[in-house]
Amino acid sequence: MDMLDSLRELLAGVKAGDLDVEAGLARLRDLPYLELGHTKIDLHRSLRNGFPEVVYAAGKTPEQVAEIFTRMGEHSHVLATRVSAEMACHVQAACPGVVYNPLGRTLTSVKGEIAWREGEIAIVTAGTSDLPVAEEARVTCEMFGSRAVVVSDVGVAGIHRLFDRLHTLRQARVIIVVAGMEGALASVIGGLVPQPIVAVPTSVGYGAALSGFTALCGMLTSCASGVTVVNIDNGFGAACAACKINNLFP
Amino acid sequence: MDMLDSLRELLAGVKAGDLDVEAGLARLRDLPYLELGHTKIDLHRSLRNGFPEVVYAAGKTPEQVAEIFTRMGEHSHVLATRVSAEMACHVQAACPGVVYNPLGRTLTSVKGEIAWREGEIAIVTAGTSDLPVAEEARVTCEMFGSRAVVVSDVGVAGIHRLFDRLHTLRQARVIIVVAGMEGALASVIGGLVPQPIVAVPTSVGYGAALSGFTALCGMLTSCASGVTVVNIDNGFGAACAACKINNLFP
Amino acid sequence: MDMLDSLRELLAGVKAGDLDVEAGLARLRDLPYLELGHTKIDLHRSLRNGFPEVVYAAGKTPEQVAEIFTRMGEHSHVLATRVSAEMACHVQAACPGVVYNPLGRTLTSVKGEIAWREGEIAIVTAGTSDLPVAEEARVTCEMFGSRAVVVSDVGVAGIHRLFDRLHTLRQARVIIVVAGMEGALASVIGGLVPQPIVAVPTSVGYGAALSGFTALCGMLTSCASGVTVVNIDNGFGAACAACKINNLFP
Amino acid sequence: MDMLDSLRELLAGVKAGDLDVEAGLARLRDLPYLELGHTKIDLHRSLRNGFPEVVYAAGKTPEQVAEIFTRMGEHSHVLATRVSAEMACHVQAACPGVVYNPLGRTLTSVKGEIAWREGEIAIVTAGTSDLPVAEEARVTCEMFGSRAVVVSDVGVAGIHRLFDRLHTLRQARVIIVVAGMEGALASVIGGLVPQPIVAVPTSVGYGAALSGFTALCGMLTSCASGVTVVNIDNGFGAACAACKINNLFP
Amino acid sequence: MDMLDSLRELLAGVKAGDLDVEAGLARLRDLPYLELGHTKIDLHRSLRNGFPEVVYAAGKTPEQVAEIFTRMGEHSHVLATRVSAEMACHVQAACPGVVYNPLGRTLTSVKGEIAWREGEIAIVTAGTSDLPVAEEARVTCEMFGSRAVVVSDVGVAGIHRLFDRLHTLRQARVIIVVAGMEGALASVIGGLVPQPIVAVPTSVGYGAALSGFTALCGMLTSCASGVTVVNIDNGFGAACAACKINNLFP
Amino acid sequence: MDMLDSLRELLAGVKAGDLDVEAGLARLRDLPYLELGHTKIDLHRSLRNGFPEVVYAAGKTPEQVAEIFTRMGEHSHVLATRVSAEMACHVQAACPGVVYNPLGRTLTSVKGEIAWREGEIAIVTAGTSDLPVAEEARVTCEMFGSRAVVVSDVGVAGIHRLFDRLHTLRQARVIIVVAGMEGALASVIGGLVPQPIVAVPTSVGYGAALSGFTALCGMLTSCASGVTVVNIDNGFGAACAACKINNLFP
Amino acid sequence: MDMLDSLRELLAGVKAGDLDVEAGLARLRDLPYLELGHTKIDLHRSLRNGFPEVVYAAGKTPEQVAEIFTRMGEHSHVLATRVSAEMACHVQAACPGVVYNPLGRTLTSVKGEIAWREGEIAIVTAGTSDLPVAEEARVTCEMFGSRAVVVSDVGVAGIHRLFDRLHTLRQARVIIVVAGMEGALASVIGGLVPQPIVAVPTSVGYGAALSGFTALCGMLTSCASGVTVVNIDNGFGAACAACKINNLFP
Amino acid sequence: MDMLDSLRELLAGVKAGDLDVEAGLARLRDLPYLELGHTKIDLHRSLRNGFPEVVYAAGKTPEQVAEIFTRMGEHSHVLATRVSAEMACHVQAACPGVVYNPLGRTLTSVKGEIAWREGEIAIVTAGTSDLPVAEEARVTCEMFGSRAVVVSDVGVAGIHRLFDRLHTLRQARVIIVVAGMEGALASVIGGLVPQPIVAVPTSVGYGAALSGFTALCGMLTSCASGVTVVNIDNGFGAACAACKINNLFP
Repeated sequence: MDMLDSLRELLAGVKAGDLDVEAGLARLRDLPYLELGHTKIDLHRSLRNGFPEVVYAAGKTPEQVAEIFTRMGEHSHVLATRVSAEMACHVQAACPGVVYNPLGRTLTSVKGEIAWREGEIAIVTAGTSDLPVAEEARVTCEMFGSRAVVVSDVGVAGIHRLFDRLHTLRQARVIIVVAGMEGALASVIGGLVPQPIVAVPTSVGYGAALSGFTALCGMLTSCASGVTVVNIDNGFGAACAACKINNLFP
Repeated sequence: MDMLDSLRELLAGVKAGDLDVEAGLARLRDLPYLELGHTKIDLHRSLRNGFPEVVYAAGKTPEQVAEIFTRMGEHSHVLATRVSAEMACHVQAACPGVVYNPLGRTLTSVKGEIAWREGEIAIVTAGTSDLPVAEEARVTCEMFGSRAVVVSDVGVAGIHRLFDRLHTLRQARVIIVVAGMEGALASVIGGLVPQPIVAVPTSVGYGAALSGFTALCGMLTSCASGVTVVNIDNGFGAACAACKINNLFP
Repeated sequence: MDMLDSLRELLAGVKAGDLDVEAGLARLRDLPYLELGHTKIDLHRSLRNGFPEVVYAAGKTPEQVAEIFTRMGEHSHVLATRVSAEMACHVQAACPGVVYNPLGRTLTSVKGEIAWREGEIAIVTAGTSDLPVAEEARVTCEMFGSRAVVVSDVGVAGIHRLFDRLHTLRQARVIIVVAGMEGALASVIGGLVPQPIVAVPTSVGYGAALSGFTALCGMLTSCASGVTVVNIDNGFGAACAACKINNLFP
Repeated sequence: MDMLDSLRELLAGVKAGDLDVEAGLARLRDLPYLELGHTKIDLHRSLRNGFPEVVYAAGKTPEQVAEIFTRMGEHSHVLATRVSAEMACHVQAACPGVVYNPLGRTLTSVKGEIAWREGEIAIVTAGTSDLPVAEEARVTCEMFGSRAVVVSDVGVAGIHRLFDRLHTLRQARVIIVVAGMEGALASVIGGLVPQPIVAVPTSVGYGAALSGFTALCGMLTSCASGVTVVNIDNGFGAACAACKINNLFP
Repeated sequence: MDMLDSLRELLAGVKAGDLDVEAGLARLRDLPYLELGHTKIDLHRSLRNGFPEVVYAAGKTPEQVAEIFTRMGEHSHVLATRVSAEMACHVQAACPGVVYNPLGRTLTSVKGEIAWREGEIAIVTAGTSDLPVAEEARVTCEMFGSRAVVVSDVGVAGIHRLFDRLHTLRQARVIIVVAGMEGALASVIGGLVPQPIVAVPTSVGYGAALSGFTALCGMLTSCASGVTVVNIDNGFGAACAACKINNLFP
Repeated sequence: MDMLDSLRELLAGVKAGDLDVEAGLARLRDLPYLELGHTKIDLHRSLRNGFPEVVYAAGKTPEQVAEIFTRMGEHSHVLATRVSAEMACHVQAACPGVVYNPLGRTLTSVKGEIAWREGEIAIVTAGTSDLPVAEEARVTCEMFGSRAVVVSDVGVAGIHRLFDRLHTLRQARVIIVVAGMEGALASVIGGLVPQPIVAVPTSVGYGAALSGFTALCGMLTSCASGVTVVNIDNGFGAACAACKINNLFP
Repeated sequence: MDMLDSLRELLAGVKAGDLDVEAGLARLRDLPYLELGHTKIDLHRSLRNGFPEVVYAAGKTPEQVAEIFTRMGEHSHVLATRVSAEMACHVQAACPGVVYNPLGRTLTSVKGEIAWREGEIAIVTAGTSDLPVAEEARVTCEMFGSRAVVVSDVGVAGIHRLFDRLHTLRQARVIIVVAGMEGALASVIGGLVPQPIVAVPTSVGYGAALSGFTALCGMLTSCASGVTVVNIDNGFGAACAACKINNLFP
Repeated sequence: MDMLDSLRELLAGVKAGDLDVEAGLARLRDLPYLELGHTKIDLHRSLRNGFPEVVYAAGKTPEQVAEIFTRMGEHSHVLATRVSAEMACHVQAACPGVVYNPLGRTLTSVKGEIAWREGEIAIVTAGTSDLPVAEEARVTCEMFGSRAVVVSDVGVAGIHRLFDRLHTLRQARVIIVVAGMEGALASVIGGLVPQPIVAVPTSVGYGAALSGFTALCGMLTSCASGVTVVNIDNGFGAACAACKINNLFP
């Protein structure tokens, strides 16, 4: 229901006397929330399509994160990213069903079952040290209902390894490319397959790797057109973008 | 047809004597081109789905660009970006049917008709000075077969203007957000709609706008998750990414 | 009393014999201190308008800070910023009445009562991780005699939350906006209200957030004109600026 | 009149039958514009308090700027910044009463008279090459109804020149400090006077002056607390901030 | 002949009376020049192995460059880089036999014949806009006596084109890789062939290409080990390095 | 054996019936690996020319590194770089014959004997704090079969020390120059000797040394032409490049 | 005469009736100017020690510079730096005796004769393209009364040329080193001679030369201790610093 | 004695038979060391003018530093900078007479007595957190024979404190200014006194202070001409430069 429709209905109700002025005023204050609001919308969305709330745990206390899992876990799946092992211990003690993924540093709580969508997301890494970022992306995809497959260690220095996995990449609906150092893998894959590609630069490397900015800028200037990029080490954001694409399908 | 299938067929042909060794050798050399090659693939792709070759005109001579339009224009649509008015004059003199868009600085030549796909792409700009980048994106979308609508001047300083156009944004399959200065529009739209968003930072602004890097980094760190980003002023790249998504649909 | 008035009075006194030459010389040496001097001025100012001395504790020893609280606390309020929990323990052991605020990392000692001014300062944060900076600002405002209200977690990703608090913002005399990542909140608020806005970028975020420089540059290039900016994480400085504005009123 | 008051009045009118549903709907669509909208608000604000529309001329065509002066000039004052001499010629030919300030590169058109407020703004420059930025600030202040006085060439290399003008600075309600190179003047003035200070770094200098970023960062880290900063060379923005403070007074 | 040998011979000559003290003194002053000196050494080296003097023309006047060609051309080959068309006209008018290469912006004068060495240098470019840098490298190689072959437009976006030319690359003694944007070609080639690779980043690209620094840093952090790098657009330097390697062979 | 030769042989075998179609298919899948593949190629190369596998230990677990040494050590030499003392203890406990070099932070395991090549590589350092990088380079050279000599502490501040060692430098086939701070040593040596020079900037220094970027950029802009550069502190990469040159000789 | 002495004398005069109060007040206002003031001090200084006023012409109009030469030229020497040929023409037309140095881009007017001091300043350049900066330094030294000798083109790539000129350097009281690219010459000279060294980085070079910042940072991190540095291309500033040292001598 | 004189004498000796060829050869090898050599020269210089060897302790082991103090301490004063408390303990245990300064982090060993020169060096700091750098400078000055006086906490925020100490500054031969944040103090002092000024930026501050680079660039672009600058936190280097100036006097 569109906002103008909502307003038209409300005014008709006031005119008809079904709503008095103060009640209409209260509804007018609330209406944007039905369209735009945070907490309420999020619960509705969760009941409707299985999307969980997401908690960025860095900079929160274990108590805060545990409380979020307790309260939200009654209504929906819950996903937290950037969770240290210490914080995970604390939260798991308070919320028994919560699962910790030490490689991807995620905490997850599934309410009922995940409603799987069709369409697979391929997550490709250049090296083994890119795996934590890929794992964060994989867990996020699955919590959002999209199946994901990780293809690791197919970096440009031994490009034949990639060619052997092209079949897998070509079956995916969206491809997430995770690479540090010079980030060349995004360009190479972008020149080989037609799917949407979301590139994640990683902070792997030293010196001129510039904590990931060389890979970031390299991906942004990729000679393969149509590659889009997210923040350094942001596996979660790449998964969000990939799932937004996959969610376009019914 | 997959590469292994091609190889199996080829080997069977050699075994059967349908292909002698040297011919098979030539086919083996050529096969990757059928899968991966540049010029040939591009022609095939153009005949199959109306996708044009794209010419990055900056750094090429007018003669080179005119020759590309002449030769390619017989087989497919042709799109050139970053074309100055002077170069456009030269190419149009040589190739009469070529169209110049001075705002978006594109040259286009359509072979037959564009095969329109379903699914619209919305291109939103923060200010009027972002329009050239938006226009480059719009022309690219259309040359790739996706209809695009431009919603301009709905920047964050007068955010109510955006709210009035949300209806339009919600009807699009993908949204391209074009903004300079602090680039906040991508975050605001990302918080309001569920579609995939491709953000294009522009070099509009001075001083701390850092020639577009402030918008670029702002979009990469957007608090609205799932926003992906392309290079500064790269309307063409954003359109490629958006069309790759739209092309997922039959 | 103006410096020229002071000099005129002094010279008249010397001419009249009320001051001999050496005493006049001493007064001349001291006069600038009455106008410009550090320790003395600060005490006078404190007695006159309740403004405390401010101690930047980072890089000082606990002993030094304790000594400052002991000596200054007899004459005026005292405020120290960037105080670690360890330093706070040490100072509180030496100076019993001193209060530690662990969120804002401030130590305060109030001499008598705070002389409250009219005019409220609103401190708005984009996210919960911006709260330590907001709290430093809030404590500073109050030690300077201005009441402050904190409105937290109204960032751009869920912009309706902000609209619900506009009433509060519109009642404030000055608004401090505290935001990390892309810092878009300053632009959005700057487009909605007429008051002076002091923006504080925070170091919240990673990668392209550039330790707060993306928010800093984004705020400096805000499309909402009239936003002014202080250093990254500098809640104290923003409060100083806001109080300087509030102090313009009698 | 507050937004809730407006809504209450509107609903009462619909209930009473003074407004039918579609008319109420139209008013509801417009209401946010009365509070938040761009063009309309600006006209209302201009009629109410003499504030002009402001046009950032860089990146606009002379025709566009002339049209804005023609259309807006009927209703309100008009101010355009960053206007080249060529553009000014064009606009003045089309709009006879428009005034060009070549130093500050502003175009102005005054509708009726400027409604002067009490409270003066002092604009201080470190050197003569900072004058264009100061002049942009001065014209902006005056178009917004605040009188401004420029104190030029009192930079730190000859600091006694500043001391002679302290009397003038102390009479102002707000002080704008314009300085390039190392930008030290903001710190020195911030240590001498109690008023709000808005610092404008300029791009004056070469090499390590970093096109104004050294002054920008120097002002942001000023040892004099409470100095706020705007973008490099942004005299207009500093004037907006200063006038927002002056406008707090009736 | 080693420096100690030279000194021993000289001292023996003085002892024997073949050299008087002042003549020995003059020789001692000159000796380092025979080993280390600029002008003299260069002439000797040129007569010995055909190596030309090299003139960096940027920042020199046409008169200076013409004089160098006139004077040096009598003794050796001469090579000048970064020569504008205007300067070339001037020099060619003064020195009839000098050849201008407008693509590589070089001026060359060959004294007698080039003494060709065995061993070929392959110069590979990612795109056509990298050709000027490749041409500067090619001319430099040839003036230094090494034959060079240019393989252009085999960038990563269409990687099969590279595979077709691997045979050529594998025949070279050294490979120079010239690429802009993300510079991925150096990594891909470095993973495929065993020869020494000298990578030249180019300033091709915009925005996040950072005027060649993205390619520079990408090449420095190449996941293919053993790639070495020269300055942005420095085709001359890459050729020097490649020829130093080729010159190791007799 | 070249790839085309391999294919020709394979096709002839299929035609002759020596290989059936599926076996040929498997060989075709494997063939690139024989030329380009990761694990297999490395074993073959090791058996053929004594080149070891190289493990970048940073970001790997001690268990992973120990497993690599156990498995690879049966077939070839093994070299690991960036190995902490703790990791070394763990690996040595699991693999008794492995040698740890605490200065160069390398772990090495030699299978049989190193097959020494002719041709020495000189590794020159500016200061004693550059020694760890030089040692990493030295160990790498030796594991790759090239003898290396380290000449340390001949930096520019006492340039006569260098002159005394020129004899040693002139006997080397390739020279690796390791220097931090301003990195001037590469320019000085590049002006004195004709050999290929690979420069390694180090992160020695503070402040304006910019963690090695000042040395990096200084070496890239060296006034001595033909100097090539690798990443900061990348002694391993410099050794790879030097050995690639030395390996050109039979 | 010290400031306290001045004040004591003044007060005694007022007490004695030699000065009435208002006259004393005027003297008190002026006194700081006698110590610190700009215009007056400069004239006095010029009469006393031959030091000229210095005009930074960049950003001034030809009319302003001509006026300064006309007015100041009556009292003292005048020096202007960064003067274009066009501005020089204009000023020379208005002020006949003014001399233009096109290499150093200075305008000078000598009042009477220069009072030469003892002690020579050596100005050393790495290359010929550094000469404009060296010439600006030379002219400035001479206008300040210190003789200067320029030793050019003794850069590190041919270091023996420097050794031949050490005799000249060792006779100077202060050495100014002017170098671009990697700026290594400052370190080499700093290791060879005991005098104070003022290093001037120049913007000579491209790419990784970073417009002079590589030389700047290289000089700041010089391994030869005691080298001090001024801004990029700031020959004037280096000469000021050198003359301040030379002026310490009677 | 000049190098040419040395050579002339040597040759005459060989001619006369006072030196045979091999002895002359040895002398020729050694001569440069007498002029330029590191270890020998340093000992000679120490015996001649009391200058100590200087050890940069960062990156050295306690054992190495202790050995240097033991060996060098027999011949000369010894100074080590950047010494941690742990290293100091170790060295003092091995070398009983060595003195540790914990504020300046220096270790010193005085051989006999310091030979004091005339001429004082003033070291001025902006704040108390700049004191460690000032103390490193003070100790260095004294070990080099120049007396130094520290004037602390006279920063720009309370500029009257500086004016009270001008008398002290004016008595010094050279002034070292130590300041962090915006580094304005160097400009203010440079405008008030005629002596040579060596400015040391410090890493005091956060955010836009950029770890000292804002102060560094501010000092380099100081509007007070003739200020020279050393690396961030480099109190040792500033003292070296100041002593080189003071050493010009007999």
